[in-house]
Amino acid sequence: EIDRERLVRLMREQAAIGATEDGGLDRLALSDADREVRDWFLEKLDVAGLDVRIDEFGNTFGRLEGSDPNASTVLLGSHLDSQPNGGQYDGALGIVAALEFVLTLDERAITPNHPIEIVNWTNEEGSRFQPAMQGSGVWAGAHDIADEYEKADADGETVADELERIGYKGGAPASPQKEYEAYLELHVEQGPSLETAEADVGVVTGIVGFTWGEVTFTGEADHSGPTPMNHRSDALVAAADVITQVRRIPGTLGERTVGTVGYLDVDPNSVNVIPGEVRITWGFRDPDDAVVERAFETVVREAEHAASREGVDLEYEETMRAPSVEFADRCIDAVQSAADELEYDSKRLISGAGHDATHLASVTDASMVFAVSEGGKSHSPEEYTSWDDCYAAANTLANAAFQLATD
Amino acid sequence: EIDRERLVRLMREQAAIGATEDGGLDRLALSDADREVRDWFLEKLDVAGLDVRIDEFGNTFGRLEGSDPNASTVLLGSHLDSQPNGGQYDGALGIVAALEFVLTLDERAITPNHPIEIVNWTNEEGSRFQPAMQGSGVWAGAHDIADEYEKADADGETVADELERIGYKGGAPASPQKEYEAYLELHVEQGPSLETAEADVGVVTGIVGFTWGEVTFTGEADHSGPTPMNHRSDALVAAADVITQVRRIPGTLGERTVGTVGYLDVDPNSVNVIPGEVRITWGFRDPDDAVVERAFETVVREAEHAASREGVDLEYEETMRAPSVEFADRCIDAVQSAADELEYDSKRLISGAGHDATHLASVTDASMVFAVSEGGKSHSPEEYTSWDDCYAAANTLANAAFQLATD
Ligand SMILES: NC(=O)NCCC(=O)O
Ligand SMILES: NC(=O)NCCC(=O)O
Repeated sequence: EIDRERLVRLMREQAAIGATEDGGLDRLALSDADREVRDWFLEKLDVAGLDVRIDEFGNTFGRLEGSDPNASTVLLGSHLDSQPNGGQYDGALGIVAALEFVLTLDERAITPNHPIEIVNWTNEEGSRFQPAMQGSGVWAGAHDIADEYEKADADGETVADELERIGYKGGAPASPQKEYEAYLELHVEQGPSLETAEADVGVVTGIVGFTWGEVTFTGEADHSGPTPMNHRSDALVAAADVITQVRRIPGTLGERTVGTVGYLDVDPNSVNVIPGEVRITWGFRDPDDAVVERAFETVVREAEHAASREGVDLEYEETMRAPSVEFADRCIDAVQSAADELEYDSKRLISGAGHDATHLASVTDASMVFAVSEGGKSHSPEEYTSWDDCYAAANTLANAAFQLATD
Repeated sequence: EIDRERLVRLMREQAAIGATEDGGLDRLALSDADREVRDWFLEKLDVAGLDVRIDEFGNTFGRLEGSDPNASTVLLGSHLDSQPNGGQYDGALGIVAALEFVLTLDERAITPNHPIEIVNWTNEEGSRFQPAMQGSGVWAGAHDIADEYEKADADGETVADELERIGYKGGAPASPQKEYEAYLELHVEQGPSLETAEADVGVVTGIVGFTWGEVTFTGEADHSGPTPMNHRSDALVAAADVITQVRRIPGTLGERTVGTVGYLDVDPNSVNVIPGEVRITWGFRDPDDAVVERAFETVVREAEHAASREGVDLEYEETMRAPSVEFADRCIDAVQSAADELEYDSKRLISGAGHDATHLASVTDASMVFAVSEGGKSHSPEEYTSWDDCYAAANTLANAAFQLATD
């Protein structure tokens, strides 16, 4: 069993970096706060006696050699970046739990026969730069590194420049250079189902698929007073139509389908000017890839209808499409048997959030451990997981990882 | 007749201050660019030999004494502030035309028996700080100066601090200290009706009334993936509902009613976060105050419906209510007879935009001259008035003002 006190201390240390006034975290990918928490992570890797490796995309690895020089590597990871005003557990708990596992091995002088690596993936959140799970996607070969370097935030800063600026564009190749035995990731559920089932821990069997995109409507900025209603092409009216449809579409598609417009930007954004240009995003998710495809087709059709009704132009782009993933039985079983041995009440579930494990599942066998999210809240300062639940999940991860690392 | 070449030169000089790349103007009230154009205005008042007076609210006057020491003052004015990306003519043409009138009197050594003042009003646009027509409203006694000093922009900067910062919090009382004979204002129409009627110049008989307001919806920021559709309180969905209603309401009220949501701000504004808080503005206008009142009641009711449908909280505030105004016959007649004597084709109309003349009409007899807006475009870099039309309107103003200043 791991050290509960140290787990709490490590969680508190990281949560102090990028802390917001209302108890949340503002640690956007490749920001100054991200640099600071990455520096903290390097220090912890050093304390744990791991060999550090930073790749060209900023993914940062710590490696512990196994007793068998030919054995394949067990990889544990998650992310330290956050939403603009996100919670303290999202991502960070997975990193801290992995650290806690290797610190416990070190303390007890246990060397499994498989080597162990722990990794902090670059830009999991996808808030500042899209797509989400960008670093793991590059590493797993789902995206071309040159394309991802050029992705820009709302101010036009690129990933490549920001990696350089914070000093985390490393020298190691951003791709698997050895054989991996398995990938495990601990994360908070970010939804209500473990709490509803009164479970101690979640055994994750897969991840939903998703489509993200961006629509820009271009109408005509004009004076909101003397311009008659029938002379208007109001970009915000078209965008509002789409927002209403995105609220409706999931109910027409599937039981588990969700759809959201999370981002909207208006130009010029003045009380007495008809909006000339409006940009919105869409996001739809479902365990069934065919449903995701239908959601994509539907939202594009609705955006076209909205544009034509209001007489505005439209451009759209799908910024991310992730297929749904089913994890490997042997990894799911390792998590399940760890939870069972520890006598935790567990619940099997499909993740409604995307995770780096999505991409890792194409490189090696993967699975995840979920910690209970109270009230199901996440991407908000109100995100909360009790220390009991943090501990249960971290213990499950450690025991599952130990199983996979020991033949 | 005035000097057409000088009119063009003055227009070009002011348009260089705060010029944007796409040919527009960014000269928000009390910004650095506003300070610069105010400095330019002071210089021109000086050249024209006028006595300068800056009041406590930054309204800036130049005074030319008349031959009769007991005669009441004829006031000519408009504004030099602009929208975030506005046009070159909106406001500025009225200031330049007033300057051109006094420069012409000076050149010809004509001294009317009435004194003449020209004025640049603070914050006519109402974009950075609400309400619009703020400086003239304070001066005319429609608003309390202490309240208006405290109005803040989106970054929390107040009018009082910004007036201090740019050095335009003057010492003169912000209220009429003498008797006024009349107020005349030249402005671009900002709508399509003069162009449609093929008129050279507009004779303005009144101004529509309006209501402006702000609604804030507060839902729950949460993760857009694992949060089921029926667990959501999405502030942007409620806002979208209201935007759709604002597009519809004018058609249910009156032929001349217009309604607009020009501003929208989302928090946290991230592709994968359910919007927790959204703020929108409304604006409705109509020549009939009873219709404006109905629009206000309707939009509040719709916002309440939208909030209850989506399960979000709402707060609203009416930030501005201006009654419609009918100008005094003797001022309308002065403008009409000036246009007729100059053999311009004129059209009488009610202004769909608000103007400082709204407030001045409560202090003295007022009217306005409109210049043709090509394509009716305004509050946009595409705003355009030909030099012929600028000249026709400025000439009409000069002749009407001369009539009123000479008994
Ligand atoms: N787990 C998580 O919040 N990932 C970010 C990408 C997503 O929106 O699912
Ligand atoms: N004329 C003008 O654009 N005034 C600003 C206030 C309004 O929106 O009418």
